[in-house]
Amino acid sequence: MPAFKLTIAYDGTGLVGWQRQSEGTSVQGLLEDALARLLDLPSVGVTGAGRTDAGVHARGQVASVVLDTARPPAYLQRGMNALLPPAVRVLTCEPAEPGFHARFGAKEKRYAYHLVVGPLISPFDVRYAWHIPYALDVAAMRAALPMLEGRHDFAAFQSSGSDIEGTVRTVTEARLADEPVEGGNIRLVLTLAGDGFLRHMVRAIAGSLVEIGRGRWPPDHLTAILAAADRGQAGPTAPPQGLFLVSVRYC
Amino acid sequence: MPAFKLTIAYDGTGLVGWQRQSEGTSVQGLLEDALARLLDLPSVGVTGAGRTDAGVHARGQVASVVLDTARPPAYLQRGMNALLPPAVRVLTCEPAEPGFHARFGAKEKRYAYHLVVGPLISPFDVRYAWHIPYALDVAAMRAALPMLEGRHDFAAFQSSGSDIEGTVRTVTEARLADEPVEGGNIRLVLTLAGDGFLRHMVRAIAGSLVEIGRGRWPPDHLTAILAAADRGQAGPTAPPQGLFLVSVRYC
Repeated sequence: MPAFKLTIAYDGTGLVGWQRQSEGTSVQGLLEDALARLLDLPSVGVTGAGRTDAGVHARGQVASVVLDTARPPAYLQRGMNALLPPAVRVLTCEPAEPGFHARFGAKEKRYAYHLVVGPLISPFDVRYAWHIPYALDVAAMRAALPMLEGRHDFAAFQSSGSDIEGTVRTVTEARLADEPVEGGNIRLVLTLAGDGFLRHMVRAIAGSLVEIGRGRWPPDHLTAILAAADRGQAGPTAPPQGLFLVSVRYC
Repeated sequence: MPAFKLTIAYDGTGLVGWQRQSEGTSVQGLLEDALARLLDLPSVGVTGAGRTDAGVHARGQVASVVLDTARPPAYLQRGMNALLPPAVRVLTCEPAEPGFHARFGAKEKRYAYHLVVGPLISPFDVRYAWHIPYALDVAAMRAALPMLEGRHDFAAFQSSGSDIEGTVRTVTEARLADEPVEGGNIRLVLTLAGDGFLRHMVRAIAGSLVEIGRGRWPPDHLTAILAAADRGQAGPTAPPQGLFLVSVRYC
């Protein structure tokens, strides 16, 4: 049966996340139901590259699916988009090599975490960023980023209850961009790329960087947190609406 | 009693528009209820510069209100924002001259209409733009804009059922900007500024420009539409989610 690679964007507001749950609307559930209905199949299993949590967004989630169909990819893409809500779009649908697995085949994932710093957050940003109503020392936050890059045990940035094997990951890029936005606010975008991410890892790093930015910790405290490998040492988990899965690379 | 000038931003998705209605959530109703609750007043009347329709957004709506209070503007702003949903924000609250009237005092209003042209619209644009899935001739659309500028009878671009006196308005600026966005799409932003706008006027102009852009009409057909002063001659009313009230000028 032919395999397909889907690239998907979604606004995670109001969704329970990527993974199908017993209650609520999930991206996986929407895609599986759309394909089953489109192709009149009893059930379809779609595998995502990353299990984004409730409220987290994606600009380039990747999924793999094997389908008992002779329909071309363009038909599948159009059909899914016709059945999906506007908050979920299949951006591309391509034929994949047999055995293509969106999760195990992923070489690098890229996330962006958006913060808006200023007294008020615009109604157009509130669904897509973490509002920080106090000043942040961006230079201090940036000084901490090189400590994240490379191969480290990220256990301190993993949510309790995570069932992923091993906590050593390689972060290939850690960047913090800032730009002025309307109303005198500043938008910060933290970009993290790496070979894999633990549950809540990007959000715990964002929460820790904010602690540094507000002056609670010096930048090199990040090294102490990594060394402690204890979730209790790191900053709070930043809220989900600031997080975007940007892209997944396979080669 | 002191008068205040409020500048307000809102995401109009799911709202019935500016004006209080017998059912549904309106921006005016939210503001009036927040002020009445904050100041423990039986009722408050807030006047908006423009009565935006259901689903229309604002980045700089202006409202006037007279309040039986000695509280400073900063207290009122903070208190309103604490009581309002995140989709509505009071950006500024300033003391106003006695007799300041947000609607009658307005010298110029500025609207922006957003379109996304391309095969697919992103989940992050779908609430804030009109999706056009076919190609548009932007040069042809732009060639029509000078015909709108100046003092004209805009009756052809007024919704039936409008109760505004007179249909002659002066458009001081008509611009169409284009920029590439992700996925190979193009974002078009139509900006119209003028001394006043009839009901659905910006959206009927946007709908007519799209007819020109898709080649149904030549650019100078806009002059014929204006001359006919007949709503049946103009293009369809563009959907509300693309429209933003950007700002209102008083001097």
